[in-house]
Amino acid sequence: MTQLTDARVAIVGLGLMGGSLAASLRGRCARVVGVARRKETIDQARTRGMIHEGTMDLVTGVQGADIVVLATPVRTIITQVERIGPFLSPGCLLLDVGSTKAQIMAQMERLPAGVQPVGGHPMCGREVAGIEGAEPALYQGCTFILSPLARTSAAALALARSLVEAIGAHPLVLEPEQQDRLAATVSHLPYLLACALVSTADALTSSDPAAWEIIAGGFRDTTRIAGSDVTMMLDILLTNREEVLQALNTYQANVRRLAQLVASGEEEDLRQVLGTIRALRREMYQ
Amino acid sequence: MTQLTDARVAIVGLGLMGGSLAASLRGRCARVVGVARRKETIDQARTRGMIHEGTMDLVTGVQGADIVVLATPVRTIITQVERIGPFLSPGCLLLDVGSTKAQIMAQMERLPAGVQPVGGHPMCGREVAGIEGAEPALYQGCTFILSPLARTSAAALALARSLVEAIGAHPLVLEPEQQDRLAATVSHLPYLLACALVSTADALTSSDPAAWEIIAGGFRDTTRIAGSDVTMMLDILLTNREEVLQALNTYQANVRRLAQLVASGEEEDLRQVLGTIRALRREMYQ
Repeated sequence: MTQLTDARVAIVGLGLMGGSLAASLRGRCARVVGVARRKETIDQARTRGMIHEGTMDLVTGVQGADIVVLATPVRTIITQVERIGPFLSPGCLLLDVGSTKAQIMAQMERLPAGVQPVGGHPMCGREVAGIEGAEPALYQGCTFILSPLARTSAAALALARSLVEAIGAHPLVLEPEQQDRLAATVSHLPYLLACALVSTADALTSSDPAAWEIIAGGFRDTTRIAGSDVTMMLDILLTNREEVLQALNTYQANVRRLAQLVASGEEEDLRQVLGTIRALRREMYQ
Repeated sequence: MTQLTDARVAIVGLGLMGGSLAASLRGRCARVVGVARRKETIDQARTRGMIHEGTMDLVTGVQGADIVVLATPVRTIITQVERIGPFLSPGCLLLDVGSTKAQIMAQMERLPAGVQPVGGHPMCGREVAGIEGAEPALYQGCTFILSPLARTSAAALALARSLVEAIGAHPLVLEPEQQDRLAATVSHLPYLLACALVSTADALTSSDPAAWEIIAGGFRDTTRIAGSDVTMMLDILLTNREEVLQALNTYQANVRRLAQLVASGEEEDLRQVLGTIRALRREMYQ
């Protein structure tokens, strides 16, 4: 299999994730071809030196590539996997950066023999959608989950790993179902509760202009991810629905338990629960 | 009334808030006296140049002061207001930095005539309790709510304002009940939901070591305030219980609404709700 340095890489979608990937790969592979829906995006990517060439035609863009990376919303990835399959070169590594994996991997399983699928999920992002927010540093230091299929060759997985390492991220191999279950809790659930907090603040304080003056760092940090791109999040929620609903269920039970402790004023119980949580949080980030 | 530059200021409690206040006031008033429970704290405050002198005796510390600032947990503040009242100089400005105001102000109302009470609530903090985390920059740029009583003189409120401005914060005058209602939503509720998220992540992922490797910035930011000091938060929750429970109630309804939209898969409704929330979040921090 080709080495990364000799590879022709096609990146489909030049938004925050794809644009940042293109920028990080420049100089680390033979050629970067960008595929985007809008000519302005391709022009910007070329002007900013992110890609060698660009096209608005999906099939043209991926033909002849050694590595294809799909960097579009999850449900778009699923249709693109089906669409490009017949046009991929034998041995081509097909990677994606979608935040849920089970449905994508089910579609990748149906790819023509010879295509080498690896699911990918980089644990990073920003609340700025589009190429405007793209930056080579985005992947630096983040965990990048890789999910190979049984049909995926060891060489293809190794190539995916070398791509991940080339952009400064840490590869972690996980089963698609395991990744979806964990991501529901540590990533998709936090998004929903940040959204619920924004709604609540709007409902309870919007009539009082003083509210915006007293909003402190705690509220800002807790609601940050409520600013995430809606199309991306919608695809994530709808393709990981069961896991997200289960995480929400456990979360709601935990909120109820805290509400009951506050309502009953059982001081020692509340102190113990909050103390345990504080210790857990510190353990996570020590 | 005394000017800040000529004032002898007593700060009761040399933890994160009191220690930072002492450090910020140094050089901006005539003298800073620190009161702490432990000799080690006083020694550290003196070594770090935060205070001119220190004492472990509350009454000794506040006697003769032109300004007394109570920087202890809310319920401790309430007992200290009662305790020190008879020993305060006529005209003394009594300020506190507790995060809930209604119960503190009710106690301040009972102070001997002549004492000038102003409730205070700086909208800042860190997840490091104690003098170790104290730093002069803590108050820089934050909103500092001031709640005078009807009995408070204009001169006393002006002195409180000048203290707030001297430490780099922005004074905002609010009624105690209004401040408690707003703080319940934008500050106390975010703490509880961050706690519920930490519990949920622990319950759903603690058996899987991969969870900690994939925890991304979203989870870290959303749970940051779950690391807040427990004694401080317990006092806040228990002295602002009604407002916190009401905010929790609205919040739980919003979580249920989002869960129902995800469960039903009503895509356009979900897109619209998430889009509105994203726009609100951007408006808050534009």
